[in-house]
Amino acid sequence: MSIEEGKNVWLFPDGELPVPDENSDVEAHEALMILNTSNKDANIRLSFYFEDKDPIENIPQIVEARRVKCIRIDHPDEIGGVEIQKSIQYALRVESDVKITATFGRLDTSSEKMAFYTSAWHNY
Amino acid sequence: MSIEEGKNVWLFPDGELPVPDENSDVEAHEALMILNTSNKDANIRLSFYFEDKDPIENIPQIVEARRVKCIRIDHPDEIGGVEIQKSIQYALRVESDVKITATFGRLDTSSEKMAFYTSAWHNY
Amino acid sequence: MSIEEGKNVWLFPDGELPVPDENSDVEAHEALMILNTSNKDANIRLSFYFEDKDPIENIPQIVEARRVKCIRIDHPDEIGGVEIQKSIQYALRVESDVKITATFGRLDTSSEKMAFYTSAWHNY
Amino acid sequence: MSIEEGKNVWLFPDGELPVPDENSDVEAHEALMILNTSNKDANIRLSFYFEDKDPIENIPQIVEARRVKCIRIDHPDEIGGVEIQKSIQYALRVESDVKITATFGRLDTSSEKMAFYTSAWHNY
Repeated sequence: MSIEEGKNVWLFPDGELPVPDENSDVEAHEALMILNTSNKDANIRLSFYFEDKDPIENIPQIVEARRVKCIRIDHPDEIGGVEIQKSIQYALRVESDVKITATFGRLDTSSEKMAFYTSAWHNY
Repeated sequence: MSIEEGKNVWLFPDGELPVPDENSDVEAHEALMILNTSNKDANIRLSFYFEDKDPIENIPQIVEARRVKCIRIDHPDEIGGVEIQKSIQYALRVESDVKITATFGRLDTSSEKMAFYTSAWHNY
Repeated sequence: MSIEEGKNVWLFPDGELPVPDENSDVEAHEALMILNTSNKDANIRLSFYFEDKDPIENIPQIVEARRVKCIRIDHPDEIGGVEIQKSIQYALRVESDVKITATFGRLDTSSEKMAFYTSAWHNY
Repeated sequence: MSIEEGKNVWLFPDGELPVPDENSDVEAHEALMILNTSNKDANIRLSFYFEDKDPIENIPQIVEARRVKCIRIDHPDEIGGVEIQKSIQYALRVESDVKITATFGRLDTSSEKMAFYTSAWHNY
């Protein structure tokens, strides 16, 4: 609600889409959650970085004023048609015209087990 | 103990109340923990943000001086009667008149498994 | 190595010692890890905060120059004889005369499951 | 992409290489992920700190411009031939000539269970 609340850029260095496990009744995935507490819609651009090729940059997103949005990275239709390969290292950059708060998480269900993972981040 | 210790606003973008598992002997839940190291009681207001409706704002809380408090989000009586639906995306904003340190965590027991989750945050 | 590296105060709002599980071959616990990259020994004081009683303050610790130290919270002999009760909410404050980097983690093995938990933190 | 994006030094106080579990089909490990969103290759130096011996310092790494890199700590050939012992406490310091964003994570598969762990950090 304040002009100082949130940050314009969020960097998440550790993404790796888990392989779905057909025997699990919870669905392995990675997702980006963005909170916009301001009174203006946020125009956001996502960029994906890789180990051995150029980044895919500036996929547009909108997060409305006073809303949170969950974006599934394993659902190409939610990220402008981009298809991220399973089990490869990638990183995520989020840039917004209004200040936001973002988090990025993984739910892994490999091997009949289940685990959440929270990557470190930098924002500015 | 210092005037610089803690922050007045804490933002947690990723809440999603897990569905209780009747076969688990640990109880799935989400909770907000607030530490007040100052010598003054903290007057706090919680706000909940959603994907498709207006936020529920300014639920009052008090955390006494030199105490920690654990607030269960799945217990409506601990958050002013607000009932957060299970399995939907929400986000949490915490504002305090004295500087505090907050954390927000989930314990998920879906599918005969158990996992803790820590969301990223922003504070200022 | 730099005068700006690390912080003097670290606050961890979410501690709760897990109950040991005799059937697990990994040991449930909580621990504080402190990294001192400086060339001076760090004189540290730990304080424990609770929900319904006054804090236990200023338990002394030393972390030598250019060393990391792991302090088990479930081992009273490592924290000045203080015995923290299992399954109650507490919080931890770490103050050091030289700048350090600290982290606090839990390993829970309840219910034949295993999970790590990372609390949020504030430092200054 | 900006001059303010990322940090030059990252400190991770809690490393402990998990013992591999031959019965698990996911591989226990620890890894450091480094994101370089700048247009210059990053010249990086890794240092490892221990509880009872001097640090191993300044292992060189390069992360190319606009790339992410995953470095396995349990693979000596990826960290200049250094062999970190299993199940001992260590800490990690990352210094870079260009600003980067780093994260450090553990995947533990002890006891037929699976858990991710995220250490706290300091950067400057």
